[in-house]
Amino acid sequence: MPLRDGFHMPGEYEPHRGCVMIWPVRPGSWPYGAKEAQQTFLEIAFAIAESEVVWMLAAPEEVENVRDAVAWHRQMHSGYPARDIPPEGRGCHPAREEHAARESCPAPGGDKTQFVIPKIEVLPIETDDAWARDVGPTCVVNEDGEVRGIDWQFNAWGGMVDGLYAHWEKDNQAASAVCKALGLSCYNAQNFVLEGGSIHSDGEGTVLVTEACLLSAGRNPQMTRMEIEDRLKLYLGAEKIIWLPRGIWQDETNEHVDNICAFVRPGEVVLAWTDEETDPQWALSNASLRVLERETDARGRKLTVHKLPIPANPVCITEEEVAGFRFEEGEDVREAGERLAASYVNFYISNGAVIVPQFGDSNDMLAVQILGRLFPEREIVPIYARPVIVGGGNIHCITQQIPQGRF
Amino acid sequence: MPLRDGFHMPGEYEPHRGCVMIWPVRPGSWPYGAKEAQQTFLEIAFAIAESEVVWMLAAPEEVENVRDAVAWHRQMHSGYPARDIPPEGRGCHPAREEHAARESCPAPGGDKTQFVIPKIEVLPIETDDAWARDVGPTCVVNEDGEVRGIDWQFNAWGGMVDGLYAHWEKDNQAASAVCKALGLSCYNAQNFVLEGGSIHSDGEGTVLVTEACLLSAGRNPQMTRMEIEDRLKLYLGAEKIIWLPRGIWQDETNEHVDNICAFVRPGEVVLAWTDEETDPQWALSNASLRVLERETDARGRKLTVHKLPIPANPVCITEEEVAGFRFEEGEDVREAGERLAASYVNFYISNGAVIVPQFGDSNDMLAVQILGRLFPEREIVPIYARPVIVGGGNIHCITQQIPQGRF
Repeated sequence: MPLRDGFHMPGEYEPHRGCVMIWPVRPGSWPYGAKEAQQTFLEIAFAIAESEVVWMLAAPEEVENVRDAVAWHRQMHSGYPARDIPPEGRGCHPAREEHAARESCPAPGGDKTQFVIPKIEVLPIETDDAWARDVGPTCVVNEDGEVRGIDWQFNAWGGMVDGLYAHWEKDNQAASAVCKALGLSCYNAQNFVLEGGSIHSDGEGTVLVTEACLLSAGRNPQMTRMEIEDRLKLYLGAEKIIWLPRGIWQDETNEHVDNICAFVRPGEVVLAWTDEETDPQWALSNASLRVLERETDARGRKLTVHKLPIPANPVCITEEEVAGFRFEEGEDVREAGERLAASYVNFYISNGAVIVPQFGDSNDMLAVQILGRLFPEREIVPIYARPVIVGGGNIHCITQQIPQGRF
Repeated sequence: MPLRDGFHMPGEYEPHRGCVMIWPVRPGSWPYGAKEAQQTFLEIAFAIAESEVVWMLAAPEEVENVRDAVAWHRQMHSGYPARDIPPEGRGCHPAREEHAARESCPAPGGDKTQFVIPKIEVLPIETDDAWARDVGPTCVVNEDGEVRGIDWQFNAWGGMVDGLYAHWEKDNQAASAVCKALGLSCYNAQNFVLEGGSIHSDGEGTVLVTEACLLSAGRNPQMTRMEIEDRLKLYLGAEKIIWLPRGIWQDETNEHVDNICAFVRPGEVVLAWTDEETDPQWALSNASLRVLERETDARGRKLTVHKLPIPANPVCITEEEVAGFRFEEGEDVREAGERLAASYVNFYISNGAVIVPQFGDSNDMLAVQILGRLFPEREIVPIYARPVIVGGGNIHCITQQIPQGRF
């Protein structure tokens, strides 16, 4: 167990070696051949790759297509040439040169200016869908900086009880395959059902979870709350588990914590919030706030809670979107008008930036401003993420950081 | 690293959960469609399965064929019915019921006698050839009995320098795939080239290796002997590495230790031996004897050395055997008349037995007698293994024990 070996889960704001993502194709998650989703995934990948490597998983037969899509996106959107050839006459990005993610290329003419090009590597690893947060490895580190992965059992958010699709074997193999590809030692935790999106670590011994998810009947029903808490401590090297009661209303993951509450640094969290008492989210957010106000963390600190609004207008799926899905047998089906679990808390913290979902809502800018104040040392990159939330999650759900370190 | 986590490699004579083997098919290793090899592998598997589970790896498209072959062999050779149905009127094996490997079946007529049936499980894992010792995981345990695997880099016994075949990517993936299938946490040691056959542990801090293999140019030429020794200690939880100079003459593995010298218990080894001064093996065995007589183990003990004769007559490959191979490009080719690295030291210690290769040689019986005295608590099972040595290794090379324990 990692705890005994001296390992713990760092905070997402600690330095990364890179980020795992998965190329979206599943017809029951991404309407109309996943075209919009793929474009948005690429925008997110390029934003992350400004300051850390992105490993994009794809089925072996898709790898060349994805490489082409990456090259095309690079050429069209960023002004970088396709296939990593530095353009004549372009300048460098000195402010970002400290980050390891970009390849340095000598400038034309032989002067010492260097071009740095975002690095997106496509890895041939099969999955059932595109939720890297939940099917990728959760990484732990020790004080020497050694990094290891944890391979939880994955059962599509509830298995036969309330899972979202009927076959998840490839997803369940993904974490160990990623460990193998990245050269990480891998803890086997296949006797415990967990997804990466259901935990947040402050890196200093405190882990946030929700009761709605971790005590759900489709995860580990044979275990008591205390046993689950012990297991989390042993695997994540944690001393204190803070149990929020609920997550975001209508969140199909049984309300993962990463959609309602996230650490911005040790001792400080953002909480998805609404002041509308008639909104079903109001009671859920308030219940979490009461816990956060009462609790202390592993170091004995009171937590500072920053409220981050949810979108002012519910984000609901349209008839046109629904018409674009093709569902498999046994797959959870969407219906037009359903409210989606849209939340600005589902951001990703890269080495240099915070990538924040936007919904075309009047609160979009407010969310960016709040996060800008909370992360003064990072760029805030807003990305229109409706094509991602339509699939059932958001930017944090489709990314999984790999900490910097030895391996 | 396992040492730091409190893990070490147990002795092969310590209790096993089971044994990994691989179904032989490679046309450049096993002549005439591998038919004889497959029969011999089955005999070995059944002998092992008397006292521990055997996991037989096979390519996914071969799995059903292998299951049929296992069922057929069971029916023909052991009197057990195919597909695990206990026969009317057969007795049980009370002496072996303490071992976990056999499934218990109620006896006909409802009395309390139980049938125990050897268990061979076929796992769909692809490899390039059939050397489970070298491509399977090396397992380590801690004092709580937790078991973890180590995934060394495998490069077909020397990579581009003097490797035996040109493509080994599937072999190199096998250890992590086995760990995954058996639920073992897996240490990544892909930055270090090693095969399981090149190490023997006494389970009490001492590891035997050969200089010929571990210092070969095709393994880790960038590392010094001291660095390699340190790496072995860190991974195997060892305190003392004993370096024998050489192995068995003509051994294509660069002279793996497991063909010349093996622990029979802590402080006691067998050494492949010949008194024929004109035999090229004479100098190699004598050089090893001088080291063993001089060295002490991790606990400070002098080693007791038991000489085990090599076959009295060289075992050479015949023209007929050579005619049955089909070699790939880049593959090491055999020629008629070549002496094979036949050695009785290449036995496998199962929970209940020692499975010993036989060559139709006048020393066959002597080897069985010597091992019988050295392993009084285990059955000695001699198996005619020419079809295995023709492929380049022997019983120890095609087996890899998984220690008993938690995982």
